[in-house]
Amino acid sequence: MFESAEIGHQLTKSEFKREEPKIRQALLGAQYRLLENGKFPVVIVVNGVDGAGKGETVNLLNEWMDPRHIHTHAFGAMTDAEREHPEMWRFWQALPPKGRIGILFGSWYTDPIIKRVMGHEKRARFERRLERIRHFERMLVAEGALVLKLWFHLSKPAQKKRFKELLASKKTAWRVGPRDLERFKRYDEFVDVCEHALRETGTGEAPWQVIEGSDPEYRSLTAGRLLLDALDARLKGAAPRLSPAAPLPRPPLDRRNVLNSLDYTRALKPKAYDKRLEKAQGRLNQLTRHAKMQGHSLVMVFEGMDAAGKGSTIRRMTRAMDARFYRVVPVAAPTDEERAQPYLWRFWRHVPGHGKAVIFDRSWYGRVLVERVEGFCTEADWMRAYHEINEFEEQLADAGAIVAKFWMAVTPQEQLRRFRLREKTPYKRFKITEEDWRNRKKWPAYERAICDMVERTSSETAPWHLIAANDKLHARVEVIDRLCDLVESRL
Amino acid sequence: MFESAEIGHQLTKSEFKREEPKIRQALLGAQYRLLENGKFPVVIVVNGVDGAGKGETVNLLNEWMDPRHIHTHAFGAMTDAEREHPEMWRFWQALPPKGRIGILFGSWYTDPIIKRVMGHEKRARFERRLERIRHFERMLVAEGALVLKLWFHLSKPAQKKRFKELLASKKTAWRVGPRDLERFKRYDEFVDVCEHALRETGTGEAPWQVIEGSDPEYRSLTAGRLLLDALDARLKGAAPRLSPAAPLPRPPLDRRNVLNSLDYTRALKPKAYDKRLEKAQGRLNQLTRHAKMQGHSLVMVFEGMDAAGKGSTIRRMTRAMDARFYRVVPVAAPTDEERAQPYLWRFWRHVPGHGKAVIFDRSWYGRVLVERVEGFCTEADWMRAYHEINEFEEQLADAGAIVAKFWMAVTPQEQLRRFRLREKTPYKRFKITEEDWRNRKKWPAYERAICDMVERTSSETAPWHLIAANDKLHARVEVIDRLCDLVESRL
Repeated sequence: MFESAEIGHQLTKSEFKREEPKIRQALLGAQYRLLENGKFPVVIVVNGVDGAGKGETVNLLNEWMDPRHIHTHAFGAMTDAEREHPEMWRFWQALPPKGRIGILFGSWYTDPIIKRVMGHEKRARFERRLERIRHFERMLVAEGALVLKLWFHLSKPAQKKRFKELLASKKTAWRVGPRDLERFKRYDEFVDVCEHALRETGTGEAPWQVIEGSDPEYRSLTAGRLLLDALDARLKGAAPRLSPAAPLPRPPLDRRNVLNSLDYTRALKPKAYDKRLEKAQGRLNQLTRHAKMQGHSLVMVFEGMDAAGKGSTIRRMTRAMDARFYRVVPVAAPTDEERAQPYLWRFWRHVPGHGKAVIFDRSWYGRVLVERVEGFCTEADWMRAYHEINEFEEQLADAGAIVAKFWMAVTPQEQLRRFRLREKTPYKRFKITEEDWRNRKKWPAYERAICDMVERTSSETAPWHLIAANDKLHARVEVIDRLCDLVESRL
Repeated sequence: MFESAEIGHQLTKSEFKREEPKIRQALLGAQYRLLENGKFPVVIVVNGVDGAGKGETVNLLNEWMDPRHIHTHAFGAMTDAEREHPEMWRFWQALPPKGRIGILFGSWYTDPIIKRVMGHEKRARFERRLERIRHFERMLVAEGALVLKLWFHLSKPAQKKRFKELLASKKTAWRVGPRDLERFKRYDEFVDVCEHALRETGTGEAPWQVIEGSDPEYRSLTAGRLLLDALDARLKGAAPRLSPAAPLPRPPLDRRNVLNSLDYTRALKPKAYDKRLEKAQGRLNQLTRHAKMQGHSLVMVFEGMDAAGKGSTIRRMTRAMDARFYRVVPVAAPTDEERAQPYLWRFWRHVPGHGKAVIFDRSWYGRVLVERVEGFCTEADWMRAYHEINEFEEQLADAGAIVAKFWMAVTPQEQLRRFRLREKTPYKRFKITEEDWRNRKKWPAYERAICDMVERTSSETAPWHLIAANDKLHARVEVIDRLCDLVESRL
């Protein structure tokens, strides 16, 4: 993998002097076209061997282009808040919006590689992290990002020479820390691990570009050209090619599915309801104040047909919790900052830290429900969403989140009854719109989407709870009971 | 101040039962009208004596209204990131957008009061912090926020009784911590300090509402009514009345000002420029890597007439710095999330932590420049902005930021020459628009605005550096030299 980056590539100073003004102007021009185009972000991942000129090259890219539209991020040790969130959280925060260039130093590769080299993490864990990275980058590309991954390499003698040079001058000696020298001792292991990581993550949609780092002229011009070519190709309209989605299986022949086979007859009388609700709320209250909750977070998702009682159920839950503990996020139209990011970004920003809860009133499942049914995204988009969502929820769970997903199910007849009631009740009139009636006409399409969703995203980590909600009282108590069971089992 | 909150206010349970459904429905209705109206945020500040029912009341407000549109924040100990920023930073992050309700528990009052009671901070510092709070709240109100400040009080015997009750039951004993009891010993000092704080911050635009907290029915209905009345009045169109702005003094009779008295003849030959630039950049590079920089941040502001050379000067500076150290924020039109917040919010979100730099290419001074001249805001808005800006920069400086503000000045003749040059040079054509020519016609109005700005916002903490920039080479070197002098003097 690194063979061609150890043969001593170099350019003469005069070649560089001749080429630099050209590439500089071309890059600046491409950057402005990207800005004007505003349709995709550029994510440049910069990794490699210490001393191979990563920092210098990034500084040069900032010098060649307009630094006002480049966001350079370096990821060091995690902060308190970062440690309480899934490991990819801080990278999601750093993604550049459409039209901009983000340079991510070290990025999501440094930590897994170092941990593996130092022996802090087992092989299986390392592989799992590489897999996660592959999925993440695939998602970025599918969402339209131009992903350029640069690896700066130095052979063992070259790295040794480089450290010697830096240490020889007072002005540069500070750049070689004891940690760098410590790592140099493990050069061979390091390169082995890196080679493996690069092989496993060098995918068709996000390949690695390995650059020999010993000659400054060679490495900077090479990096500049790679970026320019990628930008040019993409601005000319070359879209990333992803494998098309396979067709979904048809609905079962007997038309029975997880929704219509629910028992909608269960109901509670008001008196029994009052008693059971109070008990359930008391239990929930105790659980949210459990000492172990400080090492966990709680992510709740409410989805359901219109008028299925999501809102009123959420209110019964929030009443049992301290207002400082939870936050409700009603999912409406995305803001313009959200529209400039990959689909899941606007949910990532609300991911709670430890000891906190977030209740999503509608959620990322909109992608495979309303967006699918209404055609707001392509089939390929919602088809890949199942896997992206599973990855997202798995990351939440890995970081200590308890993920509770509720589907509030009503029968078409019950929905109709509620719609009519809403129209008749003055203070409920605002709750029923033309759109609700339109959605209702698409019931079969929604039903199919819901069944596919449950089948594909109900995982051991984050199972769907299907709640027959024709009787509101029974549904509310059932939701809280199930939530309590889940939380109890995890604490 | 607390006399009327110690007389044992109470309501019977039956009175409460009669009133609760009414206030509940009225509040929910008002909340939905607020959401629809979408023109102002509601900031509810909740403070007071421990055990006076703050938490219960907030939970009840969340229960009465739709919790999906209420953001409840509790402020505990500061995180790493918060400690590296001005103290008001975390409150800025928590402000609700227009149309929403934010409930801020403890808010900006807790820390100054506790520090004062515990003797950790001197009187003068306490007064300064109260003054800062007054200005902050005044700004919120001027920006359109409805600010409701609730203080929950308990007399000394009532607090003692409350703690006893809580400690008597297993279910509630956890709510009284050793810190609460520690504080109770200082009840008298605590109340003295609070009384003073309330007096000093109970302004016409953001008055305190003191509520006796011993009776749950009384305190919750009182809080609910206060919120309902405030919402109703505001939704009916009662805008906050602030004192009108005093007229600005006229420009000096001899027409001499800080801009036209600059020496525009200073210039550098290319050779001298190369030498001095390299030296200045080397110095800047060393300074940004100074160990003491880890306890400071660097906030740079670039303003200037069109074509004065802001961009090219910024690029000369960034070349001297590591891309991981700085971030350039070009200030363009606000996003919709930014428009839903007070004016300064979009700058607060970019305030750097320690060891980091942010370069603002145009800045919050737009308020008193383009917005003033073009009439994008009212006279009262830009008149109050001077003071708000001074406060902002003082807070930055207090938190260890070095604030460097540069005005790049060119003469009208030089600007004309550059505009014409830009029109002729193909790759500079995108840099000159109709708007530039329009702005140019308003030169005298801009000149007056600039002079007022310099006079009112050039402080000891954050002085303006006026740079005669008719000669670009000289200007670039001067900016970097001055920046280095400033940083050196502060480290």
